[in-house]
Amino acid sequence: MTEATRPGLAAFRAAAARIAPHVRRTFCDPSPALSDRAGVPVWLKLEHQQITGAFKLRGASNAILQLPADTVGVTTASTGNHGRAVAHAARARGLRAVICLSELVPENKRAAIRALGAEARIIGMSQDEAFIEAQRLVRDEGFALIPPFDHPHVVAGQGTLGLEMADAVPDAAVVAIPLSGGGLLAGVAAAMKALNPRIRVVGVSMERGAAMAASLRAGHPVEIPERPTLADSLGGGIGLDNGLTFAMVRDLIDDLVLLTEAEIAAGLRHLYLHERQIVEGAAAVGVGAILAGKLPAKGPIIIPLSGGNIDMALHARIMAGDLPDLMEP
Amino acid sequence: MTEATRPGLAAFRAAAARIAPHVRRTFCDPSPALSDRAGVPVWLKLEHQQITGAFKLRGASNAILQLPADTVGVTTASTGNHGRAVAHAARARGLRAVICLSELVPENKRAAIRALGAEARIIGMSQDEAFIEAQRLVRDEGFALIPPFDHPHVVAGQGTLGLEMADAVPDAAVVAIPLSGGGLLAGVAAAMKALNPRIRVVGVSMERGAAMAASLRAGHPVEIPERPTLADSLGGGIGLDNGLTFAMVRDLIDDLVLLTEAEIAAGLRHLYLHERQIVEGAAAVGVGAILAGKLPAKGPIIIPLSGGNIDMALHARIMAGDLPDLMEP
Repeated sequence: MTEATRPGLAAFRAAAARIAPHVRRTFCDPSPALSDRAGVPVWLKLEHQQITGAFKLRGASNAILQLPADTVGVTTASTGNHGRAVAHAARARGLRAVICLSELVPENKRAAIRALGAEARIIGMSQDEAFIEAQRLVRDEGFALIPPFDHPHVVAGQGTLGLEMADAVPDAAVVAIPLSGGGLLAGVAAAMKALNPRIRVVGVSMERGAAMAASLRAGHPVEIPERPTLADSLGGGIGLDNGLTFAMVRDLIDDLVLLTEAEIAAGLRHLYLHERQIVEGAAAVGVGAILAGKLPAKGPIIIPLSGGNIDMALHARIMAGDLPDLMEP
Repeated sequence: MTEATRPGLAAFRAAAARIAPHVRRTFCDPSPALSDRAGVPVWLKLEHQQITGAFKLRGASNAILQLPADTVGVTTASTGNHGRAVAHAARARGLRAVICLSELVPENKRAAIRALGAEARIIGMSQDEAFIEAQRLVRDEGFALIPPFDHPHVVAGQGTLGLEMADAVPDAAVVAIPLSGGGLLAGVAAAMKALNPRIRVVGVSMERGAAMAASLRAGHPVEIPERPTLADSLGGGIGLDNGLTFAMVRDLIDDLVLLTEAEIAAGLRHLYLHERQIVEGAAAVGVGAILAGKLPAKGPIIIPLSGGNIDMALHARIMAGDLPDLMEP
């Protein structure tokens, strides 16, 4: 696929103005406990307090607000947070939304999508299979596809989180970003490097089934088996025909960190006990990376807590010291 | 004592403008789970996400920003959150702060005050005893006293929370407010009733040692023994010479609800499991009142989650189903 135009600072600023009435400018707090641990100032961007509980509303809103007036409906495939964001943004524009999900998506995320007035259509065992159904809706029923990451409007929307982080901590030396399809990392890294070219961009994924990490190693998008993980929002492929985020991540990332499930759980526990924040596994990877000593030893460090939509029964088990056995049979 | 001038809408608006650069305009979320339970829409004002973790920063900032330029330092007595707020607001103005606390104040709150550069002076077994030391600092060392609630500038600052709640839910029929010394209730009720005279103001305290409830029953300020409670921020007396908040609460409150410790714990658990919010016991009383069926059956209901500074070891015990035995010997 020909590479799509990469959004730059002007696109991020236009997106920020466009979505401002529809998203929250979330708070950014210093973390004394993590600063002690890391030996440098650490800041947490509390994006799990975004409407719909995740940064995904930024990209979805920026894309949906640019659709033509005669759009019949929107669809997407999603591990959950993007689908919820599309449902919310579609309802805000009075558009029908059909969200295609794989069987791996937890029930709490399916229910949240239905509560937003959208149809949650369950298809197959991977995000890629669900995505084929979304493409069928586009082809056969004229829906507009809102991709979960690989689209310049989506990346531009996620980049607004980078603008806000650069405002909050202008001298940040390191930003540690949860890495999955690369929409968040591409947008945030492009925005923050445009404002501060010396910032070091660290992508953080789980060891279990990180498709972008495998693709970066291979030098091109590859498919790998999706595996259950505490960081379920980071699951899913990046698309073999990835046209934007793979190349942006490849060019913008400085370090790639992979975490074990125990390290992700440690991040979740720290955020509960010492920061009084409840986040999902995918949002705990930056903190997990600090605790595991896997981030560069320079600061200030800023970490976006990307989402909060964890199943609370699972959260309570992890807080009680249980590390759930997620191994497939 | 002659009653101080009661702040009105003009004072609340002036306070809002004065403190705007120093405090957060916190988010306000609908709660589907509580709306189902109550049968009317329920909104939560997420004030536990305020800087310093509690609404107290509003009143403290409004008072400290109006001190004369030659002020040598500030002092107060506090069950914790007000002290922390005064420490923060004093440092923001470059003023020395000495916070007088009773032995009942948990260690995590003492540490938070010291981390803000203030002295935490531990005096006696009640907020009233700590208050005597603060008065001595004023008399002997020329400090400015920032009272925890009984001062028009403090009440005016807390009232800004009412303005924000009225903005978020203009048609609110009920507001359920944690009630201790009455600074929050006086400010919020005066602000919200000025904008919407039909709103019903419910004060919520614990059964164990609520001095304002006893004073309202008596018809004048009375002292009662302070007792350990999960809602520790609601402990402390209202002052026998109360000059403002007793009369304001008496005139503005429509219903008074008292909760058992088990009902407060149920509020804390609901907020964790269904709202993904970690709050202190004092901030859970409004939700506890809904769950106990103790609020008027009309809506929309709006509830300020007033603070988040709970000892997390205690929080974890309560989430695990433990109801700590707080009975004195």
